[in-house]
Amino acid sequence: VIEKSAEPAVPVSPRVARTHAAVLAVAQQLLLERGPSDLTFSALSQRSGVTRQTLYRHWPTREALFADLVLTGPETDYPEPGGDVRLVTIAFLTSLRDGLAYPPRAAAILALAAAADRDLDSAAALKAIIDNRRTALNALLARTGRVIDEDEFAGLCGPILYRRLFSRAAVTDELIERTTNIWITPSR
Amino acid sequence: VIEKSAEPAVPVSPRVARTHAAVLAVAQQLLLERGPSDLTFSALSQRSGVTRQTLYRHWPTREALFADLVLTGPETDYPEPGGDVRLVTIAFLTSLRDGLAYPPRAAAILALAAAADRDLDSAAALKAIIDNRRTALNALLARTGRVIDEDEFAGLCGPILYRRLFSRAAVTDELIERTTNIWITPSR
Repeated sequence: VIEKSAEPAVPVSPRVARTHAAVLAVAQQLLLERGPSDLTFSALSQRSGVTRQTLYRHWPTREALFADLVLTGPETDYPEPGGDVRLVTIAFLTSLRDGLAYPPRAAAILALAAAADRDLDSAAALKAIIDNRRTALNALLARTGRVIDEDEFAGLCGPILYRRLFSRAAVTDELIERTTNIWITPSR
Repeated sequence: VIEKSAEPAVPVSPRVARTHAAVLAVAQQLLLERGPSDLTFSALSQRSGVTRQTLYRHWPTREALFADLVLTGPETDYPEPGGDVRLVTIAFLTSLRDGLAYPPRAAAILALAAAADRDLDSAAALKAIIDNRRTALNALLARTGRVIDEDEFAGLCGPILYRRLFSRAAVTDELIERTTNIWITPSR
């Protein structure tokens, strides 16, 4: 079953899109310089020169902003859909690894995770991000008929997040391939 | 290869041990109530009535305090050493799952992770915690001759941390058993 997930608000005009992108860049900068607790709407307004009222039109909550910071960032090689489950999964995890190398993205996901035990909105934002990513992988795999379930997705992404965010050793191609080979067995 | 890892400082007298435990309990409370950025030595001194000078004797750095908060907490059923790699691993991961259910422990590990991109001491504290845990698992497995390498440890623990801290669905016994069965194949 592929779950539908909340998409980030789609900017409606080039001007709005430019503002959106410019403010996100400022937010990424603030997050890196001063950490998540100082990334407030008022700090963001001051630094970007965009009014708080406008900021709230883009991100109704601080969690929506952080979620956008997780899902937005430098483009990494996004995988093509394909017919080989293993190869598509390896490409997906490689793209996840490369995306998480960007420090503001890692900082944003950790900030949501840190808040989630106390704050339902942060927990919901995290869940939406993860559903979004699992839906994305299953869309890439659509033609194979294979659907990655939640446990398999935890098995595939967990080691990558663990290595990047906690043990902080290199997320090697070998780890990605070994994890994929172990979870994605040839169908019988 | 089993790596040696830094052990937390061992309290030397019952009085010192009592102070250590009492201050940690206050720190856990502060962490839950106010989040990691407000858990400073001065807040901790004020709330616990222990001088900052004494606090620094217990924890020379804030990272040492956070590391202690990760490794300290309610006792969970710690696994016995055993001769069956699968069963020992399942017991170890179950104990990890039960330990992470304790919110201050999850908050402390996320706080270290959030700081680690910018702060070498936090990164080192995280690495020490993880080496400590992998050494612990390998000690439980000593009689089997099986040594869990870093990739396998990432494969085993990653999905548990991912499920607890990011996707926030239940870390089920089924996930633990499936992950173990997939990584721990019968030796040939």
